[in-house]
Amino acid sequence: MKVEEISKVKTGWKLPLLPLPVCILGAHVNGKPNFNTIIWFNMLHDNPPLIGVAMSKKHYTNPGLKENRAFSLNIPTTEMVKVTDYVGLHSGAKVDKSKEFEIFYGELKTAPMIKECSVNIECKLVNIKEFKNTDFFIGEIIEVYSDEKYIKNNRPDVKKFDSFICLQPNGPYWKIGDYLAEAYEVGTSYKPKK
Amino acid sequence: MKVEEISKVKTGWKLPLLPLPVCILGAHVNGKPNFNTIIWFNMLHDNPPLIGVAMSKKHYTNPGLKENRAFSLNIPTTEMVKVTDYVGLHSGAKVDKSKEFEIFYGELKTAPMIKECSVNIECKLVNIKEFKNTDFFIGEIIEVYSDEKYIKNNRPDVKKFDSFICLQPNGPYWKIGDYLAEAYEVGTSYKPKK
Repeated sequence: MKVEEISKVKTGWKLPLLPLPVCILGAHVNGKPNFNTIIWFNMLHDNPPLIGVAMSKKHYTNPGLKENRAFSLNIPTTEMVKVTDYVGLHSGAKVDKSKEFEIFYGELKTAPMIKECSVNIECKLVNIKEFKNTDFFIGEIIEVYSDEKYIKNNRPDVKKFDSFICLQPNGPYWKIGDYLAEAYEVGTSYKPKK
Repeated sequence: MKVEEISKVKTGWKLPLLPLPVCILGAHVNGKPNFNTIIWFNMLHDNPPLIGVAMSKKHYTNPGLKENRAFSLNIPTTEMVKVTDYVGLHSGAKVDKSKEFEIFYGELKTAPMIKECSVNIECKLVNIKEFKNTDFFIGEIIEVYSDEKYIKNNRPDVKKFDSFICLQPNGPYWKIGDYLAEAYEVGTSYKPKK
């Protein structure tokens, strides 16, 4: 790409265009498993492994998560796209979503995990940072579960990993595409301009 | 997928397998633009738009970001994969990375942005949360820049958006793939089990 061909403009976008991983958060609310779809989450720290989730205060899930201090993050496969979107469209205040998945538990008895998902991250809530419209939940990762078919020599078998992303702000959902390059390696053949 | 075919195992993974967007962070350090590649960032809040970035305290960038209270997040295209990896492999303490890109500035004079990137997010640092090994920088988005070719009717033209993701923990980089489904819509045709 020639730089002179680039014509930068102020977009005024409040939410920048970003490809974000899609995830189903699981928590107990009013004594029952509930699930909602999120894209605002990422790692915060390596050791101990901490992960942060920003969730609108309007969500039905937030009080349950605060009460039980536990949650799960479950990575859906592309064949789960309809149900993933469904649990994001409907509030647990109006719809019982506890029957849509096969649920299992790890050490934390109030972090319901979804069997059909390829990766399950079991988290203990360790802190909350409050913003005006969102709660930022900080969880310590207690365990990561996966299916044997996604594991090869004790490592994730990334070629079989069939998750999808959501383009913020309005979608659509996109599949993960083709292999591009090795991370922490392809840059070794880059020739600096200076 | 039949649920009985799923064989869940504890993986012991400290960092869960996650497809994360790749981004080049720009900041001034010791009076000069510096860039490093990150994958630990996401939105925290909508209005005002806040974005969080977790960065190892070992990074050369952190003191500069704290001093100047400004940074940028720049989304590289797939043809930038080599240079993106390169700026992640080398510390600004040892290598001058200021010449690798065409740089432009917006309102904040210490948030260098990369012309070649498809989306540029200009951020004012508003808060820092310290963890043991990482600084969690909270930035308010001042403006989002893009190229006219990625915009259609004042909206992002997502079909042309050519970013890539990194599979945590070790890569590789993957392209964004095919269209999967409309977000906030495909779930309306889901038939609940209950």
